[in-house]
Amino acid sequence: MTEPALEGLVEALRRLPGVGQKSAQRMAFHLLQHDRDGARRLAGALTHAVQQMRHCQRCHTFTENEICSTCSDPRRNPRLLCVVETPADQAALERSNSYLGLYFVLMGRISPLDGVGVDAIGAAPLLERAADGVVEEVILATGFTAEGELTAHALAQALKSRGLKVTRLARGVPAGSELEYVDLGTLAHALGDRR
Amino acid sequence: MTEPALEGLVEALRRLPGVGQKSAQRMAFHLLQHDRDGARRLAGALTHAVQQMRHCQRCHTFTENEICSTCSDPRRNPRLLCVVETPADQAALERSNSYLGLYFVLMGRISPLDGVGVDAIGAAPLLERAADGVVEEVILATGFTAEGELTAHALAQALKSRGLKVTRLARGVPAGSELEYVDLGTLAHALGDRR
Repeated sequence: MTEPALEGLVEALRRLPGVGQKSAQRMAFHLLQHDRDGARRLAGALTHAVQQMRHCQRCHTFTENEICSTCSDPRRNPRLLCVVETPADQAALERSNSYLGLYFVLMGRISPLDGVGVDAIGAAPLLERAADGVVEEVILATGFTAEGELTAHALAQALKSRGLKVTRLARGVPAGSELEYVDLGTLAHALGDRR
Repeated sequence: MTEPALEGLVEALRRLPGVGQKSAQRMAFHLLQHDRDGARRLAGALTHAVQQMRHCQRCHTFTENEICSTCSDPRRNPRLLCVVETPADQAALERSNSYLGLYFVLMGRISPLDGVGVDAIGAAPLLERAADGVVEEVILATGFTAEGELTAHALAQALKSRGLKVTRLARGVPAGSELEYVDLGTLAHALGDRR
């Protein structure tokens, strides 16, 4: 290919996670040949999302406002705070329809191999958030991977030392799996059996 | 999720071929959390490509100019015209470094099940292009799938009736393969076309 606009598009598509050279080419040709409207929409959605989306000041998830819709929902129980790694994990828990408290989204997890320590995952904002005088119980719902467990362990120690009740999702979630991909029934059980 | 900007982005990403709900979510979160610059670039590349890319007036591939770089290359042999289904197929043939003629890109193939007939794949522009008085041989390099074969068959009839020499890529045993694992149809063709 010697067309800069096409090469630029393929190059930009390759930056998406899980997309290699062949997939990026296929996507570019598809958009140009069959779905130019889709390409325009995607461009608009990307620009809009990058401009609008920021982090909720209370739970750190993505939102277009100061405070996200979950945090500002008065029907939510403010005495329960559930700590998850990603917004995708939060969405999975929401779909299980068995939790009515609030969330804190770490946007990451401790990963010593990648040089991600306890500070980089927002432990300080979490401790501050959990110390608002309303939160009574912090449910650690990080993944049951080695890194998720490590994150939960580190956070549990810090939270307990501040006198908070700390629970962990019940085992029942298969070890080694990401929350996002666990079936909803298992998630509901894990919430009910938290300890 | 109840964030319109995020939902819009996920929805737009789902229109990419091979991207489902989970992948689209993963892409959206990745871009927002780790690669906002990549998101901006992708938006720019999409807008630019949709504005700039059109079809080469001679071979129908994507180009930013009236005539693509291959068609306007004087070192190319204008007596040979190779017909392919997609720009990706053309790119594969180019990488083989064994063809120095020109191309015609159908941008599709006959597919009766999808209602794509011989008219929808640019047969008329191909016939016009091949009848320029310079082209002597048309090489049909459509895929060796049922649909590719059907396309080649239909085009061969039309081209031959206009007095053009029509050839098809050779069928045979792929390089690097064990005879034991080659399918019987391919073996039968390889035997029949032995040289």
